[in-house]
Amino acid sequence: MVNLKSIFSNTSPAPPLRVASPKKGCSCSSKKSKSDSCCKAEPKSSGKSCCKTESTMASKPLMAETTGSSSSSTSLNSEVKLCCRGSSEANEDEVIQDTDALVLSKHPDHPANLICEFCRIFYNNGWVTGTGGGITIRDNDYVYLAPSGVQKERIQPLDIFVMSLETQKYLRKPLHYKPSACTPLFMAAYTMRNAGACIHTHSQNAVMCTLLFDKVFEISSIEQIKALPKIVEQGNMWYSDKLVIPIIENTEKEEDLEASLRKAIAEYPAATAVLVRRHGIYVWGETVWKAKIYNEAIDYLLELAVKMKQMGIPTVKLD
Amino acid sequence: MVNLKSIFSNTSPAPPLRVASPKKGCSCSSKKSKSDSCCKAEPKSSGKSCCKTESTMASKPLMAETTGSSSSSTSLNSEVKLCCRGSSEANEDEVIQDTDALVLSKHPDHPANLICEFCRIFYNNGWVTGTGGGITIRDNDYVYLAPSGVQKERIQPLDIFVMSLETQKYLRKPLHYKPSACTPLFMAAYTMRNAGACIHTHSQNAVMCTLLFDKVFEISSIEQIKALPKIVEQGNMWYSDKLVIPIIENTEKEEDLEASLRKAIAEYPAATAVLVRRHGIYVWGETVWKAKIYNEAIDYLLELAVKMKQMGIPTVKLD
Amino acid sequence: MVNLKSIFSNTSPAPPLRVASPKKGCSCSSKKSKSDSCCKAEPKSSGKSCCKTESTMASKPLMAETTGSSSSSTSLNSEVKLCCRGSSEANEDEVIQDTDALVLSKHPDHPANLICEFCRIFYNNGWVTGTGGGITIRDNDYVYLAPSGVQKERIQPLDIFVMSLETQKYLRKPLHYKPSACTPLFMAAYTMRNAGACIHTHSQNAVMCTLLFDKVFEISSIEQIKALPKIVEQGNMWYSDKLVIPIIENTEKEEDLEASLRKAIAEYPAATAVLVRRHGIYVWGETVWKAKIYNEAIDYLLELAVKMKQMGIPTVKLD
Amino acid sequence: MVNLKSIFSNTSPAPPLRVASPKKGCSCSSKKSKSDSCCKAEPKSSGKSCCKTESTMASKPLMAETTGSSSSSTSLNSEVKLCCRGSSEANEDEVIQDTDALVLSKHPDHPANLICEFCRIFYNNGWVTGTGGGITIRDNDYVYLAPSGVQKERIQPLDIFVMSLETQKYLRKPLHYKPSACTPLFMAAYTMRNAGACIHTHSQNAVMCTLLFDKVFEISSIEQIKALPKIVEQGNMWYSDKLVIPIIENTEKEEDLEASLRKAIAEYPAATAVLVRRHGIYVWGETVWKAKIYNEAIDYLLELAVKMKQMGIPTVKLD
Repeated sequence: MVNLKSIFSNTSPAPPLRVASPKKGCSCSSKKSKSDSCCKAEPKSSGKSCCKTESTMASKPLMAETTGSSSSSTSLNSEVKLCCRGSSEANEDEVIQDTDALVLSKHPDHPANLICEFCRIFYNNGWVTGTGGGITIRDNDYVYLAPSGVQKERIQPLDIFVMSLETQKYLRKPLHYKPSACTPLFMAAYTMRNAGACIHTHSQNAVMCTLLFDKVFEISSIEQIKALPKIVEQGNMWYSDKLVIPIIENTEKEEDLEASLRKAIAEYPAATAVLVRRHGIYVWGETVWKAKIYNEAIDYLLELAVKMKQMGIPTVKLD
Repeated sequence: MVNLKSIFSNTSPAPPLRVASPKKGCSCSSKKSKSDSCCKAEPKSSGKSCCKTESTMASKPLMAETTGSSSSSTSLNSEVKLCCRGSSEANEDEVIQDTDALVLSKHPDHPANLICEFCRIFYNNGWVTGTGGGITIRDNDYVYLAPSGVQKERIQPLDIFVMSLETQKYLRKPLHYKPSACTPLFMAAYTMRNAGACIHTHSQNAVMCTLLFDKVFEISSIEQIKALPKIVEQGNMWYSDKLVIPIIENTEKEEDLEASLRKAIAEYPAATAVLVRRHGIYVWGETVWKAKIYNEAIDYLLELAVKMKQMGIPTVKLD
Repeated sequence: MVNLKSIFSNTSPAPPLRVASPKKGCSCSSKKSKSDSCCKAEPKSSGKSCCKTESTMASKPLMAETTGSSSSSTSLNSEVKLCCRGSSEANEDEVIQDTDALVLSKHPDHPANLICEFCRIFYNNGWVTGTGGGITIRDNDYVYLAPSGVQKERIQPLDIFVMSLETQKYLRKPLHYKPSACTPLFMAAYTMRNAGACIHTHSQNAVMCTLLFDKVFEISSIEQIKALPKIVEQGNMWYSDKLVIPIIENTEKEEDLEASLRKAIAEYPAATAVLVRRHGIYVWGETVWKAKIYNEAIDYLLELAVKMKQMGIPTVKLD
Repeated sequence: MVNLKSIFSNTSPAPPLRVASPKKGCSCSSKKSKSDSCCKAEPKSSGKSCCKTESTMASKPLMAETTGSSSSSTSLNSEVKLCCRGSSEANEDEVIQDTDALVLSKHPDHPANLICEFCRIFYNNGWVTGTGGGITIRDNDYVYLAPSGVQKERIQPLDIFVMSLETQKYLRKPLHYKPSACTPLFMAAYTMRNAGACIHTHSQNAVMCTLLFDKVFEISSIEQIKALPKIVEQGNMWYSDKLVIPIIENTEKEEDLEASLRKAIAEYPAATAVLVRRHGIYVWGETVWKAKIYNEAIDYLLELAVKMKQMGIPTVKLD
């Protein structure tokens, strides 16, 4: 009963449509009226553009247009006014103009919205407190990334970075933020495993298990193992299968983990996660939903393993 | 203070009316206007039917009509438009047309709504994370079942299966989902004990107790025991009574548990639950509310028993 | 970080106005329109009266009128329509007609509303799961009591009993419910200590401490002790004071605890709580807010004491 | 998974605008209509002034005007009516008239609003239950302080004290409340470290660590350490750095901690926190957000340290 998951995924049976909320320095706080004096005046101002036009994109709009405004909105689309900090302004030459459209969507399952939602869930689980941890979601070539060193539970869509998987260049770089130091690690999951998402937490269950296990974390014959994939073949693990997660040693800088993470991924083809000693865990999956489920199931098993160790019960069942 | 129950049952003194929310692939996101262009167009489209008519059924409508739309709605009923994924389309010959009416109701105590609500509560307790666990509710002949292998906290009414207890045939089978592997086990509670609901969790307290106890879980002389029924006679247990819950061995496939579960139910006529080693627990009750209360009371006792074991205190009081 | 308090007291800085919500069997679900067909028809129906008139009573209306409707509503009062299950119908001769007015108020601090709110908070803390525990609040002569054997987190104002402290007779008895078995125990706190409220929980911290301590629970030199009253003199305890809470033995029936509870209250004049072995705790205070604070502070200390015992640290500081 | 952070920071991606809600004794409960009979009448009444005018101050209004009403509201500002308990009435000669404007703002990041929000978050983490703990935020010369001995999760903006850092005199003193006993301790963080905020909790992880460590708390080689500042030089700590937090002895009265707290701050220039034996912790930061992050990261490390000690693992890594 110590496990609190996803309070906010639950506050409404269908997650509410979320769009970026007005920020400091933006004087337009109402989204209701197009004749709002703030919003009418803003587009004319130079420098900070305060009001964006966003199409609602009702028909599964998991991918926002990358350039221009959604001026081609159909009758199914409604227009809303959004305030932002002018993060669409290019701060590097390769950044596309009006990149806010990459992260603004009314669809709750848009990667930018899901990153915000999941960060709040993970924060409530104690997995990403104190700016720790992170999450990335990939939609075809587009890789969405939370920024570095920020309070994860307060991330907004406009705070999110977007990178092209193919070119490894940023399509969107929010002002005032640094890209996540986890980026090369996340890329390893994308390129080596064709992952659809990767979750990184500082879960204390993960850290404790890296203190209680040596080279690998091992557990067998627990029903929850069946939520995890075999990977090397189709389907999920069986109850009596042994789950093995490699543990790599931590480094001073997060980006320096890349080589050993890649090595562990290569050496453990059946693993969908890598533990980092005294640090946390990386978990990936074919889709963001799979990654979420795997992360939950693994954390359940890590938590149980600590309890079993405390009571002197071996985590791998002896036959 | 580590126990978090039912955040969402609590956000409103009376649970909010919940109806299935619009899904991907459905372009009708507004329920407010009957003249919504999406909704007007949809009924004519073949294949995916997007808009359903649902009667509000104000007067204790715990059982929705099984066929047809609620065209006989009285002045007490209002009509709302709902979007769905076309799950009403028959995918097996025995499935009734327009079976969505079986699971769509504005009444918060409709079995389909309660399954969704309870799954969120159980998820927040850590009982059904990573797609684990489940719940079934029976309303006379109709057995409502959550689907297999899905995120329990995100289930919507339209995701729910309905089976006839008498014929053991599905009256409703949502597209894209598999029936729960727990179904034969739930049926055992219905047929052998005339249960009104059955809850299955992967509670770590349950798993730990199956690692700390041998053939049965036993505890006595704890006040919380009084929340549990005697079953073999009228009324609830006394404080000093010994609660005994049988523990059966786990199997590779969940459905293979059926024989030993049935045996345990037969051998322990006073038990309202069965523990499954390294797996979790099945708890049932005369009604869904009783099942919920029993499950909470038993989990409290399982949690307390682990703590007592940790401190070297016997769970059965020595006189 | 394992402590979850009062999620719902917190969802809004000022607790939302809560009135009894529509129940099953009541066809009036809208409170917005006085011309609602249900509400207009209902007053004329015999048997179940569905719509009540309640005055908003803006100016600190902690005590609702006991008889009649609030027809004397002033311009400061608005009228709302409420649905109920006809629980105002007398089922014992001493019960006043239209006793719903005793428990219906828009003021969030009305005892009936606070009982509902606190029960949800306590449920989320794991203190009253599985129908366990309870709370009573006194407003002058009126004693408000939660019913027996119900899910505490789902109590509504109309479910609440009201008793006269002076006559010890019920002024209000909801249909279908039994009075709480804790009633004589609560009355001991009212009559022997002039309490304004009494809280009873099945907190596992309380139960564990009754298993780890003998005749009394003792702790000293913890800052949180300063939240507790000296009682035998003015003001609160000091940091280095020793908090002593007597532990009484449990009985088969809750009402049989009365004699030993009264004895403990008499023998420990400085105690604002009594622990019950293998059962839980009773905590009272001058007002409902004091009782809530004392209960929180004591539970904090009980939880800490269990942790200290686990680490071999004495709970009473040795100088 | 035992860690619940900030449920309420999360209920909305952008924290909702919160203004002081109507209190008892105030008959004006509607903020919608300026023609509300209550609000129109109130300004004329002597004694308790019920309705205030507040400017919405859309453009980052972190500092409210200190005198007069916001009559100079521009077209970007809307006017709302607020009820209060007349706490603006001067109860000491140095208090400015209409000091409510110091704490009333629609901006969620106004110090008065953040104190209320954070107190609810901390309460849900078990850090400030039973009236324990507190928080202060500084905005230039203005120091905002929660009152003493109140339920932290129920604090409203109008309950908050404001002091001038320079003159050390109160600019605002709510009626019925006492200033926090932590005030001189908070001032030490402001004057000795130029802090922007200081958080004081009774976290059980903090208390347990003061029972498990002697003169200082020490931990090294845990990734979460990197969330903490070096202070004596630019930037954050490295993974393998050793975090050292001094532990001072508790005193009977909180204000008597000042001398030893000042001594610890002086002797540990690299510390951003001080633990108080058997009491809790004080954590400060350059801004309120930094203080929140540091407090979360430190509590994570304190919690982990207790678990490591329980399993016999040294908290400082041996090379």
